[in-house]
Amino acid sequence: MKMKSLEWDGGKVRFLDQTRLPVDEIYIETEDERRIGTAIRDLAIRGAPLIGIAAAYAVALAANKCAAKSPAEISAYFDKVINLLAGTRPTAVNLFWALNRQRRVVEEHKSRGSDQLRAALLDEAFKIHKEDAVMCDTIGQLGAALLPNAATVLTHCNTGSLATGGIGTALGIIRKCWEQHKLKHVYIDETRPLLQGARLTAWELKNDGIPATLLSDSTAGFLMQQGIVNAVVVGADRIASNGDVANKVGTYSLAVLARHHGIPMFVAAPSSTIDFETEEGNGIPIEQRNPKEITEPFGRKVAPDNTAVYSPSFDITPSALIAGIVTEQGVLFRPYETSIAGIRKSSKS
Amino acid sequence: MKMKSLEWDGGKVRFLDQTRLPVDEIYIETEDERRIGTAIRDLAIRGAPLIGIAAAYAVALAANKCAAKSPAEISAYFDKVINLLAGTRPTAVNLFWALNRQRRVVEEHKSRGSDQLRAALLDEAFKIHKEDAVMCDTIGQLGAALLPNAATVLTHCNTGSLATGGIGTALGIIRKCWEQHKLKHVYIDETRPLLQGARLTAWELKNDGIPATLLSDSTAGFLMQQGIVNAVVVGADRIASNGDVANKVGTYSLAVLARHHGIPMFVAAPSSTIDFETEEGNGIPIEQRNPKEITEPFGRKVAPDNTAVYSPSFDITPSALIAGIVTEQGVLFRPYETSIAGIRKSSKS
Repeated sequence: MKMKSLEWDGGKVRFLDQTRLPVDEIYIETEDERRIGTAIRDLAIRGAPLIGIAAAYAVALAANKCAAKSPAEISAYFDKVINLLAGTRPTAVNLFWALNRQRRVVEEHKSRGSDQLRAALLDEAFKIHKEDAVMCDTIGQLGAALLPNAATVLTHCNTGSLATGGIGTALGIIRKCWEQHKLKHVYIDETRPLLQGARLTAWELKNDGIPATLLSDSTAGFLMQQGIVNAVVVGADRIASNGDVANKVGTYSLAVLARHHGIPMFVAAPSSTIDFETEEGNGIPIEQRNPKEITEPFGRKVAPDNTAVYSPSFDITPSALIAGIVTEQGVLFRPYETSIAGIRKSSKS
Repeated sequence: MKMKSLEWDGGKVRFLDQTRLPVDEIYIETEDERRIGTAIRDLAIRGAPLIGIAAAYAVALAANKCAAKSPAEISAYFDKVINLLAGTRPTAVNLFWALNRQRRVVEEHKSRGSDQLRAALLDEAFKIHKEDAVMCDTIGQLGAALLPNAATVLTHCNTGSLATGGIGTALGIIRKCWEQHKLKHVYIDETRPLLQGARLTAWELKNDGIPATLLSDSTAGFLMQQGIVNAVVVGADRIASNGDVANKVGTYSLAVLARHHGIPMFVAAPSSTIDFETEEGNGIPIEQRNPKEITEPFGRKVAPDNTAVYSPSFDITPSALIAGIVTEQGVLFRPYETSIAGIRKSSKS
């Protein structure tokens, strides 16, 4: 993977505008942390891990413009920056996790002069980015070991290099599986409303030369019925401490279908996706998408005026339907309360 | 329902071009049976019952141009016409059923002069059309009785006046339920790839003032998880003699999801949709749609060049997942082999 979805480039952040793929490969450079916020809100930058990385760099960008001198002023300045970034998307917990790391850096360095604070914030952002790439590799290795030989895998949305700082989470597993000559074929849900499967995952797999077939989301059941798929792998936007998973809408339907057909469904995510404060899935906030994504997809009107729309961005998959959660700290199995509590301890140590 | 999706108008067939809805309401008039064939192939005319009605009128149009004199020439002429129409779509059995009725009319009247043959073919087409309207009413009544009070119904694709000669099959049930003040709300799957739910069903329900909400197909599971839906009603393109149902792709996924949530799923179709010659669902031919409907929906490119696509138009729902099949001859329950055999006898008597 040569393509960088997002990187720091001498005082600027350079990112691929994912809303333009696969037709146009447009990179945007900015020195303005608010531009990063807009890009996250508009899904030009998306994928739970990448959102966290982008937000960390955005705080580093903001440091370059900080005129505050006293520690109190510095705290107030960064509080504002961090709150603005935290308000862009409500579900991906990696966003708050990355911003909390930067908040701690501000608190530790705010009395040591602006040069040192700037350097420390940038250093933390690099660390978050680098750690994510390493986590993707580990998740890929651990997940590939769970898949059968001649694996035919169904995936949903995009969980690859466009969603992370590395090879991806669920797509990282698919890539490692391919490297190990264990992968037969990938089926990709197109993933309405924004078609991240068609636009992004098909594009990534084509770039890698991995054999893949695209289908409409509601075709997944028929594909499973025919015995074609032997594993489902997806990412996560937030995982509750009981193992319930918030992920792109449609994940729950896949989980029910996979269970009905006896196909294992694995969730892949860095441990930063786990929200230890939320006990179960129904405590996770779910944003509603713009109704126009359903009534006027890509600017083309397809429904009558004033049609009511129900368009949650995510759904909740109960942990009982998940065969395993692949994190960089290991694969978690049922009972998830216990296995996730183990993660918690090690990440606090 | 004032709107006519298709009608005979003094030697011509006038039909609504359903590919242009909901933005444009364009009626096309033709005296050419091949134009009807093209309209069926291109889904300008669609819905299993309406396809049968359109094909019957198309044979009547062809009669107006028939220069053949001898009974053998007449048979040959209509064989060609009927074969052309039969080749437009492979799954909807109503098409073959209507064409067989016209074939019998040709055989009975071919020796009685062209005027009488023309009149008989038109008369048979009117009969098929009128019968379908009556069947829709009956199906609507029988189906509405199955639904609970304050019914909140999920439906898929379009099964209304645009798909039939009357108020519709599954949508006929919804309409009767609304008339009886038993209906609380309708949720409509948008129904990729061609969005018949968004374009057609939302349009019909809006015209009737029935409260409805549109959602992407993969949101249906999450909706059911929240306990919002208490019945699923869908149509059918072909029903095997064991009760397996071919219907718009996504129906099978809904059936599995409905079963998982303990929600009944009803299939509504005239008995002409039953294919007594096909023992089970896997004997039903399934057409593949044009891959561009997935990679370039409505002319907008959303996937990389040369992306492989799997896009069956229909899927097969095993009868075990169906709570009842509502026909104009009554509601069929398990075991379907027996209840469908009962239909068979009465339709042959």
